[in-house]
Amino acid sequence: MENFGFYSPTYFAFGKGMESSAGDLVKRFGGSKVLIHYGGGSAVRSGLIGRVEASLKAAGISFVSLGGVKPNPRSGLVREGIALCRKEGVDFILAVGGGSTIDSSKAIAAGVLYDGDFWDFYEGGVAIEKALPVGTVLTIPAAGSEGSGDSVVTNEETMHKRGTGSDALRPRFSIMNPELVFTLPAYQSACGATDIMAHVFERYFTNTKEVEITDRLCEAVLLTMIRETPRVIADSHNYDAQANVMWAGMVAHNNLCGVGREQDWASHNIEHELSALYDCAHGAGLAVIFPAWMKYVYKHDVNRFANLAVRVWGCQMDEQNPEKTALAGIAALEKFLKSIGMPLSFAEIGAKKEDIPLLVKTLGVSDENPLGGFVKLNAKDVTAIYNLAADR
Amino acid sequence: MENFGFYSPTYFAFGKGMESSAGDLVKRFGGSKVLIHYGGGSAVRSGLIGRVEASLKAAGISFVSLGGVKPNPRSGLVREGIALCRKEGVDFILAVGGGSTIDSSKAIAAGVLYDGDFWDFYEGGVAIEKALPVGTVLTIPAAGSEGSGDSVVTNEETMHKRGTGSDALRPRFSIMNPELVFTLPAYQSACGATDIMAHVFERYFTNTKEVEITDRLCEAVLLTMIRETPRVIADSHNYDAQANVMWAGMVAHNNLCGVGREQDWASHNIEHELSALYDCAHGAGLAVIFPAWMKYVYKHDVNRFANLAVRVWGCQMDEQNPEKTALAGIAALEKFLKSIGMPLSFAEIGAKKEDIPLLVKTLGVSDENPLGGFVKLNAKDVTAIYNLAADR
Repeated sequence: MENFGFYSPTYFAFGKGMESSAGDLVKRFGGSKVLIHYGGGSAVRSGLIGRVEASLKAAGISFVSLGGVKPNPRSGLVREGIALCRKEGVDFILAVGGGSTIDSSKAIAAGVLYDGDFWDFYEGGVAIEKALPVGTVLTIPAAGSEGSGDSVVTNEETMHKRGTGSDALRPRFSIMNPELVFTLPAYQSACGATDIMAHVFERYFTNTKEVEITDRLCEAVLLTMIRETPRVIADSHNYDAQANVMWAGMVAHNNLCGVGREQDWASHNIEHELSALYDCAHGAGLAVIFPAWMKYVYKHDVNRFANLAVRVWGCQMDEQNPEKTALAGIAALEKFLKSIGMPLSFAEIGAKKEDIPLLVKTLGVSDENPLGGFVKLNAKDVTAIYNLAADR
Repeated sequence: MENFGFYSPTYFAFGKGMESSAGDLVKRFGGSKVLIHYGGGSAVRSGLIGRVEASLKAAGISFVSLGGVKPNPRSGLVREGIALCRKEGVDFILAVGGGSTIDSSKAIAAGVLYDGDFWDFYEGGVAIEKALPVGTVLTIPAAGSEGSGDSVVTNEETMHKRGTGSDALRPRFSIMNPELVFTLPAYQSACGATDIMAHVFERYFTNTKEVEITDRLCEAVLLTMIRETPRVIADSHNYDAQANVMWAGMVAHNNLCGVGREQDWASHNIEHELSALYDCAHGAGLAVIFPAWMKYVYKHDVNRFANLAVRVWGCQMDEQNPEKTALAGIAALEKFLKSIGMPLSFAEIGAKKEDIPLLVKTLGVSDENPLGGFVKLNAKDVTAIYNLAADR
């Protein structure tokens, strides 16, 4: 096991009606003037924004609002948010939405306290040392941003989708009410579930040996997702199934599932080019990329893939031929993704094979700057993975 | 799933040599004058206290010291610590040791800021609202106190062993270096492992349905302990095995394994009377009590016990007779505990059958004041459980 630091100081208020504690929580964590940041009109129409505003008012907290966050959140709205916070003297950002809204909020929170352009944090190599405190009211279980220090934003000028991370970005509190997810379309729930499972895979595939506890925690999340996701797809009003998925999504990404070892993250980066260029859902892009990545790299550690197949997918271990077991696990993943309505090919997300050279170029991967921890991928490797996804 | 709050804000510095960061961490979390609280002379003789002191000095932090914490920490030393802190103007408590030292430190931390007698928190129903910040350097993986808000102390005058809990007691940081455990005798490691597994069992046995993610996380910790404990017993210098046990011990008790549902905790309370009266190790008492408790209550939910047997102990499910599977799981636990050198009977820990009425009386259990969440136990039930442990 490698040395590590683990820090997940977010207070999680989980359960029915918890959005009514937003005002008290903002106060507890030191906010007095809030920016409510959200996405489309659904949060307003559903009455959620109204309930959050009422809770803030009841706690004597004043606020301004900024909606309009889109999936794959954009740099332009972040700049607008930073300007608004400065003008209004905002000291706390409250994200009401999914990962895109939370990531946009984190970008604003860091940008407000920074003299330069916030994009420096995402592509300029500048570390985030301070940020306004952020709280969240989660409406889409997927990104895990409610418990992480990560943020991913797309630069509108270059269409570069880039991530950054800092403990300063970890939310002070996150309100997680599974009832708020009842209206989510099945396709979006499936995309979220895929993202959650992908967050575990990125940490599960490692060259660091003997980190059994982290392996087992990863498997716990995957086993939960395999049981609960189809129940959510079948009935979005199944409170318990939604609750299990929602909490699993947090556990998958606050890094409890990654400590003590090298991680991978090649597939996330390879996917980011798809959602940036075609504006597909991140989870849909991951469903296309992850099986392709697995098929390309599994020979690097057949036993690890076989172990996952046995422990998580319930495959029988073929001692004479572990490769067969490894491939059965990958096939089980594909079957599962298909069963919840996820795409598996370029065609299904509107991606084009002829764009592959452009995707690889934008990704900026090379022999000197490879992707991934489990297997180091150069431009040729990434091209092969895109081709595997395009040709199926 | 029930509503819950989850808050585990401790920063964990895990790995080789991490004790050298003690000074920087105290500074980061606002301390300037430290009480170093520890147990016996081994922490001094091993050079650990010296390294911690050097780290504090290098960071410009002054300190005073108080050793002498015993297993099942005593109220007298807590009072001594409170007086010392007040006299010296201490603003940060650094516990160097295992659960007893950390629990004693937490009691001091709360007591310093309280006008009355600190025992009010443990038996007087007074809630802990504030405490000096506590940091830990863990030397025994067992109690999980390094990541919890709990503290258990024994009152020397009455020999009452009582617990309390508050988010204010959660350590600001915990340093966890598996190398510090290399010198622990096998028996003590086994006691620690039993305590860790017991912390999971107390949360696993619940009447709340449909909390799959928490179940799976519980099972992840148990599966890890079943693999790693025998390796620690066989070779205390096995770094990876010790590391897995150490981290599992934290995960078992920061309440990640308990959220979203009712918990039990009868066995811990039943055991506390044994370690208070006979001064046996808490883990040894748990090894005696837990199988007895399981045999007494399993009929309350045979399927839950059968599920544990299958998922954790690798038993085959007997669909025709799930009770057989449930009992096979309890037998597997007993076999495991025996294999790591744990006692299973009253005789092995010096407990006496004729003391049972006294044990039940001190516990203060009655029809009006039953124990446990999974099954409510009255004095007759607890007597039966003690008898099961005495008669084997």
